Amino acid sequence: MPENLTALLNALRLQFSDRLLTSEAAREHHGSGESHLPPAWPDAVVMVTSTQDVSDVLTACTKHGVPVIPFGAGSSIEGQIHAPHGGISIDMSAMDQIVSVQDNDMDCTVQCGVTRQALNEHLRATGLFFPVDLGAHATLGGMAATRASGTTTVRYGSMRDLVLGMTVVMPDGEIIKTGGRARKSSAGYDLTRLMIGSEGTLGIITELTLRLFGIPEASQTAMCSFNTIEDATQTVVMALQCGLALNRIELADGLQMQAINRYSKTSLPERPTLWIELTGSAATVQNDIVVLEGLAETALRFEHAQTAEAAAKLWRIRHDALYASRALRPGIKGISTDVCVPISKLPACISAILGVVATTDIQAPLVGHVGDGNFHLVLLYDPENEVEAKQAYHINSSLIEMAIEMGGTSTGEHGVGLGKKAYLPNEHGPALGVMRRIKRALDPDNIMNPGKIFDL
Amino acid sequence: MPENLTALLNALRLQFSDRLLTSEAAREHHGSGESHLPPAWPDAVVMVTSTQDVSDVLTACTKHGVPVIPFGAGSSIEGQIHAPHGGISIDMSAMDQIVSVQDNDMDCTVQCGVTRQALNEHLRATGLFFPVDLGAHATLGGMAATRASGTTTVRYGSMRDLVLGMTVVMPDGEIIKTGGRARKSSAGYDLTRLMIGSEGTLGIITELTLRLFGIPEASQTAMCSFNTIEDATQTVVMALQCGLALNRIELADGLQMQAINRYSKTSLPERPTLWIELTGSAATVQNDIVVLEGLAETALRFEHAQTAEAAAKLWRIRHDALYASRALRPGIKGISTDVCVPISKLPACISAILGVVATTDIQAPLVGHVGDGNFHLVLLYDPENEVEAKQAYHINSSLIEMAIEMGGTSTGEHGVGLGKKAYLPNEHGPALGVMRRIKRALDPDNIMNPGKIFDL
Repeated sequence: MPENLTALLNALRLQFSDRLLTSEAAREHHGSGESHLPPAWPDAVVMVTSTQDVSDVLTACTKHGVPVIPFGAGSSIEGQIHAPHGGISIDMSAMDQIVSVQDNDMDCTVQCGVTRQALNEHLRATGLFFPVDLGAHATLGGMAATRASGTTTVRYGSMRDLVLGMTVVMPDGEIIKTGGRARKSSAGYDLTRLMIGSEGTLGIITELTLRLFGIPEASQTAMCSFNTIEDATQTVVMALQCGLALNRIELADGLQMQAINRYSKTSLPERPTLWIELTGSAATVQNDIVVLEGLAETALRFEHAQTAEAAAKLWRIRHDALYASRALRPGIKGISTDVCVPISKLPACISAILGVVATTDIQAPLVGHVGDGNFHLVLLYDPENEVEAKQAYHINSSLIEMAIEMGGTSTGEHGVGLGKKAYLPNEHGPALGVMRRIKRALDPDNIMNPGKIFDL
Repeated sequence: MPENLTALLNALRLQFSDRLLTSEAAREHHGSGESHLPPAWPDAVVMVTSTQDVSDVLTACTKHGVPVIPFGAGSSIEGQIHAPHGGISIDMSAMDQIVSVQDNDMDCTVQCGVTRQALNEHLRATGLFFPVDLGAHATLGGMAATRASGTTTVRYGSMRDLVLGMTVVMPDGEIIKTGGRARKSSAGYDLTRLMIGSEGTLGIITELTLRLFGIPEASQTAMCSFNTIEDATQTVVMALQCGLALNRIELADGLQMQAINRYSKTSLPERPTLWIELTGSAATVQNDIVVLEGLAETALRFEHAQTAEAAAKLWRIRHDALYASRALRPGIKGISTDVCVPISKLPACISAILGVVATTDIQAPLVGHVGDGNFHLVLLYDPENEVEAKQAYHINSSLIEMAIEMGGTSTGEHGVGLGKKAYLPNEHGPALGVMRRIKRALDPDNIMNPGKIFDL
């Protein structure tokens, strides 16, 4: 073990005693996460419980020149929590206090380790909720750090839009507050947005003030099948232009529907399918569902759930899509692509990539947050099979190249981590140099999650 | 004239010939703007017509170490376009091309000198519009640089929320693209949001890709008077929590209503007054206006405009508020405060500051974008009168101190420029040091609008 690491661990043990973990189990758990990438363990884990703890760890790591990797729920899938250069994994999951909820202001302040599920559970009696609903069990700090989004982003925006202010610990241990509780501000640089999506490479988010929303009075759900992705997309475009009270617009392709039929024992059309949820006042959603049915003139089938139970059943089908995909090839986890393109480009993008998929042995069912132009192919390949692995990487990189060509992005919501680094020069060009200059200015010793997003 | 400036002007004259202006009139026009601050002229003005022009000017200014101050429509009010250290005012108003409009994607790309009015005029046939509607005649580049907002921000967000991507020229002349056309992305640092609100201190925005929205089918307007600001605010809080289809929620206080009655020859109650506009489908707004009237149980008077003409008449009253204020004291321009606080703090904030105003000789009518917690007092004082000037500054600084204490901000939408610099240490604390580090990293020679937002 290098001397600086030994010295650091001795110092941390003095302060944190049994909250400093060096067991194999702890290191393994903190160095793998949900990613398809090979694990990379940290040298040790510190379980922090306060912003001051985080500051103390960063001060010590800076002093000894040892990397720090923030860890929330470990649900990131692009290697954001991996420790390719070793170092200290700083586990925030015990920072799980809801600091305050301000009903009248429709905002709340939470510690970074609170999950979105725990927050919404806590809010239940208030009639308010926090809308970003990604699939994973994730902490709000991690969601901010990854600039996460979810199925309701088409209505409410992503983490980028819903964080009002934050407490952040900088690499040298300095504690700063960004933003505040005002709904808007023109007072200087937007450090809140700079930290959101920076994946722990600039500082560690320890508290967040979040916007909340009133739970809508009513909702209506429809599920509709189309002959083509074009028809489905065009219906979505019209619904967006009409300003319907869209809350969720999810897409699955024919293969995904086939997987769903097999998994859920349904006999739905194995064609491109939309799930659409409208929310708002009863008057609004009753009006808008009729308008929607009129717009969906190319639909082969338009199933409008007449009861809450019927709607829940339709959504359960959508939620089971990932399991249904994986059941196409049991024992195989698959990796998920994540491009996001202007919605008008979706049909061409999907059609082109499915053309590429067809030249390989890979099955790749598709689901998408189509209102945002973001979709995921689950690439079902056996990582032990070199040919398949090569094909899967070829599909992913071809897709990313296409998406960037179309004005889109390599990652709509999963982040860069280690997995998407290679694509950023193409996506950002010289802007990547500006990002690097910011990184060097704020983390001159490169101790903050080094090797993520880009190399210096 | 210092040697470096002479050399720069010679170089610029070679390239730009009669687009380099050094006349007193041009320098005066570019060094005063709409601000109450004393003018500070640039040494010369360059009229640019392309991103490459901007790059050439910045390259030359960096080479000669001369400051650059970006200029759009000159409508900034905190001295953002002033040249306290001299230098080159780079006038972007001729970069007024609408590059492309993508109906299906509900986005467009414009040069920075396009005004919001020109854009909406251009969009008229598409059924789409761009919603940020600040009072001033402003360019979209300037609006982004100031992180501007408007009366519909409560519905659609501010410039922060509605810019998808940008072309930016960095101080050394390098041209970068930030963001793109995807609705969301997790690919690296959010340089778009970093540039928005940076007031030309990090780079110059030359093109913007903006989100557009469908023009709603219907709208309903109500104007209602209340006994107290508390009653008005509580009505707004409930309307926000219910998720009504609020498009605009504007507030005026009793003195402002008195000014309006005098100016517009109306006999409205001289009490706190709300203008509320609901937009959406006909079904939605017809439902929501009824709900709103029910919520406004403390209203002394609830006037629901039954026709488009009647609604336009109510909004004309609101739009004339500034002229009505100024007519209280003819010949006096006044300065506008701009704090923004959590909405629950509005009544206490307004009541406390009106208490301060009452101890002075200043009249200070109030209008506010109450849904955002942002309000403006127009401080009508004679800048030649030292006592009044002192009182006006005292009111402004007391108000800012209170707002920051309440979790709010010194400026909701006007920006910092020169006028609000003094308040940023209190608002941001150590975060201001992080902003300075970013500034130094991206503009090491401090040529970009130096002296604005903070001193280095």
